[in-house]
Amino acid sequence: MNYTVENILNHRSIRKFKAEKLTKDQIHTIVKAAQQASTSSHVMAYTIIGITDENLKAELSAVSGQPYVKDNGHLFVFCGDLNRVYQQASREEQLQMQESMESTEQFIVTTIDAALAAQNASIAAESMGLGICFIGSLRNDITQVSNLLGLPERVIPLFGLAVGYPDQQPEIKPRLPLEVIYHVNEYKNEEKQQTLITDFDDQLTSYYQNRSNNTRKDTWTKQMIRKYSHPIRMDVKPFIKDKKFNNR
Amino acid sequence: MNYTVENILNHRSIRKFKAEKLTKDQIHTIVKAAQQASTSSHVMAYTIIGITDENLKAELSAVSGQPYVKDNGHLFVFCGDLNRVYQQASREEQLQMQESMESTEQFIVTTIDAALAAQNASIAAESMGLGICFIGSLRNDITQVSNLLGLPERVIPLFGLAVGYPDQQPEIKPRLPLEVIYHVNEYKNEEKQQTLITDFDDQLTSYYQNRSNNTRKDTWTKQMIRKYSHPIRMDVKPFIKDKKFNNR
Repeated sequence: MNYTVENILNHRSIRKFKAEKLTKDQIHTIVKAAQQASTSSHVMAYTIIGITDENLKAELSAVSGQPYVKDNGHLFVFCGDLNRVYQQASREEQLQMQESMESTEQFIVTTIDAALAAQNASIAAESMGLGICFIGSLRNDITQVSNLLGLPERVIPLFGLAVGYPDQQPEIKPRLPLEVIYHVNEYKNEEKQQTLITDFDDQLTSYYQNRSNNTRKDTWTKQMIRKYSHPIRMDVKPFIKDKKFNNR
Repeated sequence: MNYTVENILNHRSIRKFKAEKLTKDQIHTIVKAAQQASTSSHVMAYTIIGITDENLKAELSAVSGQPYVKDNGHLFVFCGDLNRVYQQASREEQLQMQESMESTEQFIVTTIDAALAAQNASIAAESMGLGICFIGSLRNDITQVSNLLGLPERVIPLFGLAVGYPDQQPEIKPRLPLEVIYHVNEYKNEEKQQTLITDFDDQLTSYYQNRSNNTRKDTWTKQMIRKYSHPIRMDVKPFIKDKKFNNR
């Protein structure tokens, strides 16, 4: 197994960082790595905002409810962005582009483009001895995040990425068995999956009971059912619509 | 610069592969790498379908219009999947979970989860000397792809990933300048961006004229305006809605 694959398989999210900040060189290497990810039709439909202002970090941390959004080596916010292309066009061209830009198809393009770039950033950072954590909880108040960053129409905050020198060494969190995630030629919706997931529930119970921090008694299945029984972030849809995404 | 970052910066999409198939070991390493990506709240909201059936590959290739969807070392299709969690629940719990599962928020979670996994798969494959190409064009007929793979409600095909031994060595395609993609503390929508994009247009014109294959005269700006002037895949929205995503 080569170093890159080892590095990927060694991933665990880091939620406690040392105070040391990333250098400009480190930040630029991470951003260049992000930019080299595949992008649909060369659109590069995203913008990455680096947060250095400590007050701004504190406000974003308050939205997310997570201290590591404030206390880290560097914070990136990944935004879907079709505004860049839109601004290149004449008024007449803009009118012609609206239907396409507001389609769910282009919303998917934007979201995937940003995520591919962010995962490249993560792998690059981890290969440099840094730790990372994705911050979906910036969507706890997506309007507030958008206002804090001054995002215009056709730009939406998707998630944050906290990076820094790890100040903890958590265990690697187990993943569902390969056979549950990976199917061949057709979708498998069989009884066998249930057995494998039950085994995984047992494995996760043992992981939660034995890990060094935040031990608890839980299974994946129970967690998921609890999670989806309480709708969250129902304001995301109207927010995104107002930003001229996902309308058609 | 370490090997992993070098590997990431060296990315170019490969659209012509040698006939050699990936081994089961290679496929499993790639899938395990995919699975180790970050996932929102541990949901792992995706399924990866590997395509080995040659007839099925030919049909998917016809949807995409691309020969390399058929002729490659292996083809993966990445699907957003909340069905796995749904099937774990009782009928009563399922009813309670519907509002959350059908939210735009969870559609974003699903899409990002799948994309993070896919980018890990890509980096792992490239580190193993393989080439990759993302296949967004499977969404040319998303209903047909869904039918071919037997996807139930709450599972949607998002994109393919062709992997194999490269039978071409294309130039690395330029990316927008770092300053255009990377902003600090707030979104920059300034005149300066326009100048940088104009420079990039010149750079791309030269790239298109000098590359070894498929030379043409074009700029990024012209390409983008052409692309967005013609809406495509407007059936994606109703398809996804029918599959119980992105409704609320």
